[in-house]
Amino acid sequence: MKKVGLIGLGAMGSGMAGSLRRAKFDLYVLDVRPEVSQQFVKDGGTACSSLKELGSLCDVVVSVVVNAAQTEAVLFGSPDAPGLVDSLKPGSVFIMCSTVDPNISIAFESRLAEKGILYVDAPISGGAAKAASGEMTMMTSASAQAYDKVNDILNAMSGTVYRLGDRAGIGSKVKVINQLLAGVHIAAAAEAMALGLREGVDANALYEVITHSAGNSWMFENRMAHVLAGDYKPLSAVDIFVKDLGIVLDMARASKFPLPLSSTAHQMFMQASTAGFAKEDDSAVIKIFPGIELPKASK
Amino acid sequence: MKKVGLIGLGAMGSGMAGSLRRAKFDLYVLDVRPEVSQQFVKDGGTACSSLKELGSLCDVVVSVVVNAAQTEAVLFGSPDAPGLVDSLKPGSVFIMCSTVDPNISIAFESRLAEKGILYVDAPISGGAAKAASGEMTMMTSASAQAYDKVNDILNAMSGTVYRLGDRAGIGSKVKVINQLLAGVHIAAAAEAMALGLREGVDANALYEVITHSAGNSWMFENRMAHVLAGDYKPLSAVDIFVKDLGIVLDMARASKFPLPLSSTAHQMFMQASTAGFAKEDDSAVIKIFPGIELPKASK
Repeated sequence: MKKVGLIGLGAMGSGMAGSLRRAKFDLYVLDVRPEVSQQFVKDGGTACSSLKELGSLCDVVVSVVVNAAQTEAVLFGSPDAPGLVDSLKPGSVFIMCSTVDPNISIAFESRLAEKGILYVDAPISGGAAKAASGEMTMMTSASAQAYDKVNDILNAMSGTVYRLGDRAGIGSKVKVINQLLAGVHIAAAAEAMALGLREGVDANALYEVITHSAGNSWMFENRMAHVLAGDYKPLSAVDIFVKDLGIVLDMARASKFPLPLSSTAHQMFMQASTAGFAKEDDSAVIKIFPGIELPKASK
Repeated sequence: MKKVGLIGLGAMGSGMAGSLRRAKFDLYVLDVRPEVSQQFVKDGGTACSSLKELGSLCDVVVSVVVNAAQTEAVLFGSPDAPGLVDSLKPGSVFIMCSTVDPNISIAFESRLAEKGILYVDAPISGGAAKAASGEMTMMTSASAQAYDKVNDILNAMSGTVYRLGDRAGIGSKVKVINQLLAGVHIAAAAEAMALGLREGVDANALYEVITHSAGNSWMFENRMAHVLAGDYKPLSAVDIFVKDLGIVLDMARASKFPLPLSSTAHQMFMQASTAGFAKEDDSAVIKIFPGIELPKASK
């Protein structure tokens, strides 16, 4: 049985590790918080104490860290510690699940190829609950050789695996474009709901009509339910879209491509973040609008 | 049986008139193009030749003209011709189905009340096909007295009648907010698809992923199918959103309310209009993006 490592037992990573364990892979986990790894392995699997240890044991490593900088440190090390490239064997496979600038993902593939390590560009989507149930979505691209070695692993973690191309970058590009739409739609939903409140429209009636009309979006339906409930407990925080729309704009700037709505939405999330709502649910972007009274949480 | 007039046999109005005819109302129609009225009444109903004639015959009038200016002329006349108020009897009901600035709809209700005429604020949604099958949506508000007289007529024309308040304005506000979202979502869909093309992502694959992900919207799914087919035959034209997002911004300006995304999307539709795409399908807003090659229509 393949030895599979997973790095980053956060909201998504812990669910994915659970899916790999249920699928009976020989599983090794690592998190910057050692107590989190120890807790996880009570139900099976092995906790590693370093990238070096995990890299030397595993044939395939799934990385579910927060961003490109952490992925860079996992792969290539930091002043304190060697990276995976110092212990992974040639022919092993690295599956990169973070949302990063696609040009950075393309560079990771090239740099790993120099060491004979295969690479799968594999951003994920769907939220923590779907990660836990093995029903999340992966937007992937990779060489046929890399896919051959990890198709069973991708399928074990996901309800849907999109295979979008034969090299790194395409998976990340599609994920980034999904984040463009998700971010603009959350900000647009907030703008529409705020205008309704300003105009004295009943917020629940507005929600009912819009969710049955051509103005609906997945995000309007999902996030405005949080606003109606007055519940800004973060499922995904304002600062995630400060980051992700920033990645959208970085990618487009590299090819000098104008994005009027994305840049406007990014400004709205930055305004929300700096106004004090950085760690609240991303629907708290509605709090940048003046002159309205938002629905309160029921006691 | 009530005598019902309908003014404006366009894409929506002709379908609504058909629904009223199927429901066996005693139907009178009027259009600025007399040949259109004549053609319609071949299958039943009576064509009127003037507002005066229609107003003197009908208990209820449904108005489905293009905008507020035309509604104003229908009600209050023009230098050439008297308006409906000169012939409608006190106690009759005017059903206003156009998308207009809610503050204008509120004023219509007051001005008609002076003549003893009841008013229903009743913008419509759903497109020509649903108007024809009687399955469209109406976003209405009116006094109980007005509703009592026309509930059967509203129900005959619509799959869903939202009753949103007891006075004019609320129906139009909800409709305008739906148009805010619809317009922003079309422009965002175009921005996302354009970025994908710029980045070399396969457009059909991108459509497949987004329509199954959290970035989806009703408008992305509907309008990007036109872009993939290279088909800009107008179902709803670019200039409709120049108008409707203009109404959104007019309404918000009256209460000094900022709408960053709506104003940006409005600029995009104006750019598309003046660049030569005013009469094309609203998905042609994607043509403002430089440096990309759009899918061609198949022969």
